Amino acid sequence: MRNLRLDICYDGTRYRGWQRLAGQNGTIQGKLEQCLEQILGEPVTLSGSGRTDAGVHAAHQIANFHTASALGADEILCALRRYLPEDIGIFSCEEAAERFHARLNAKRKTYRYRIWNSDEPCVFDRRYVYRLAQRLDVQKMREAGQRMLGEHDFSAFCTAAGKKKSTVRRVDALRVESVEREVRITVSANGFLYNMMRILAGTLIEVGQGVRAPESIPPLFGAKREAAGFLAPACGLCLMGVEY
Amino acid sequence: MRNLRLDICYDGTRYRGWQRLAGQNGTIQGKLEQCLEQILGEPVTLSGSGRTDAGVHAAHQIANFHTASALGADEILCALRRYLPEDIGIFSCEEAAERFHARLNAKRKTYRYRIWNSDEPCVFDRRYVYRLAQRLDVQKMREAGQRMLGEHDFSAFCTAAGKKKSTVRRVDALRVESVEREVRITVSANGFLYNMMRILAGTLIEVGQGVRAPESIPPLFGAKREAAGFLAPACGLCLMGVEY
Repeated sequence: MRNLRLDICYDGTRYRGWQRLAGQNGTIQGKLEQCLEQILGEPVTLSGSGRTDAGVHAAHQIANFHTASALGADEILCALRRYLPEDIGIFSCEEAAERFHARLNAKRKTYRYRIWNSDEPCVFDRRYVYRLAQRLDVQKMREAGQRMLGEHDFSAFCTAAGKKKSTVRRVDALRVESVEREVRITVSANGFLYNMMRILAGTLIEVGQGVRAPESIPPLFGAKREAAGFLAPACGLCLMGVEY
Repeated sequence: MRNLRLDICYDGTRYRGWQRLAGQNGTIQGKLEQCLEQILGEPVTLSGSGRTDAGVHAAHQIANFHTASALGADEILCALRRYLPEDIGIFSCEEAAERFHARLNAKRKTYRYRIWNSDEPCVFDRRYVYRLAQRLDVQKMREAGQRMLGEHDFSAFCTAAGKKKSTVRRVDALRVESVEREVRITVSANGFLYNMMRILAGTLIEVGQGVRAPESIPPLFGAKREAAGFLAPACGLCLMGVEY
C-alpha cells in the first residue's frame, strides 16, 4: 500500500468540522474521503493531523491516507482540485514515508485566533474573525500570554477532559499582535486539548477586557474548566500549520 | 433638508449590483435605502458615486442622501450598522455640505482588479479574485498599461457606448503589481465608462497571456468594442476609493 500525504486548506464556515461523523454529511474529512473514493475507486480513510471544530478554518492542515491505486500523486492532486468545492483547497499530494502518520507524528501545531476589535465594518474577512467592538488591552494580554508558556496542566482549558488522559501540554510560543483593527493570538504547542485554543483565546480576551488580571493565569493550571475563560467562537480560529 | 454622506463598503457577491432596479430586490442601493427608510421614517433616495455591476465589490464607496429627519448622524450610523446585513458595512455617516453630490462631484475614482494567477488553492479570498492558472507576463502588462495613461477615447472599453455621450476619459495612474500569487491591476481615472475597468483588465490579461502585444493598445483608442479584450469577470473587481 502506498502512503500519500495531503496538504490542505479550508474555509470551515459551512462544515461540521474536520471529523467524519457516522450518518452525517458536511464534514471536511467526509468530503475529502468521498472525492478520493471517486478518484481512486476504493474506500479511503484519511487521517488528519487533528480535528478542527465546526466553523474552524485551516490555512494549512495535513492528512495522509493509504491506497492500492497506481494513480500518480499529481493526477490525484489534479482530480481533487477539480472535484472539491471551492472552500476546500489542496496545496499538494505527495508520496510519504511508509510510516508517516499525520496525527501520531505531529510534533507541534500552530493555531491563530483573530479578533476584529472595532465597530468599524469588517466585510471581506467577516467569516474569519470574531467581532468584538470593546477595545482590548493588548499589553495586558501579552503579559497573561507569557504566563502560559511552557509545560502546564491545561485541564481548565479543555472541554470534557477525561480523567485518564493527560491534560499536560507544552506551549512553545504565544504571540499577541495588534494589526490595524485586529488583535491576533498565535500559539504553537506540542498538542492542543479539545477546545484548548478557543478557551485560551477566551481567557486572554477576558484579560484584555480587564475582567481578569495576568496574574490570574498561573492558578488556572490543574484547575477545573470553570476557572478559565469563555469558549471564544469558532469562526475566529484557524489552524496555521503542523510540524513533524 | 439636511444632506448626509455615507462611506460604505460591501462584498458584492450576492447582489445584483449597486443600482436599485424597479420591482427587483437584491441591490446594494435598494438595501441601504430600505434600512434608511426604516430608521428615518421617510422615503430616501441615495446617490452613489457610481454604479458597480452585479458581483463587484467596494472597499470604499461614497453616497449621499437628503433627509428632513432630525436624527443625529451618529444615531443613523449606529442604526445602519445594526440593521444592515454583514456583507454591507458603513465606515461613517456625516453631515455634508448642502451642494455635495456623491456622483456629480466625484473628481477621480480608483478601481482594483485582482487575478489569482496560480493553480494553488485560494480558499479565503475566493470571492474577491478572478482565478487564472496560466502564468501572466506582468512586465508586458505593465508596458501595455503605460500606454493607457492619459486622456483617450475609451470607446472600445465600453459596453453599449451611446453615440451621444463622450467616451473620453483620463487615466491618471495604472499599476500592475505581482503580490505573491496575485496580479493586481489598480487604475485611477477621472471617470469610468460602463464595464471600462473590466474590459481594461481583460485586455491587459490578454497581453499577459501573449495574445496581444503592448503595442496593440494605442490603436484601440476610438475603436469599436470588438477591438479590445474580453470582459473580465465581475468577482475580481473592487472600487477602492473616490476623490472629491
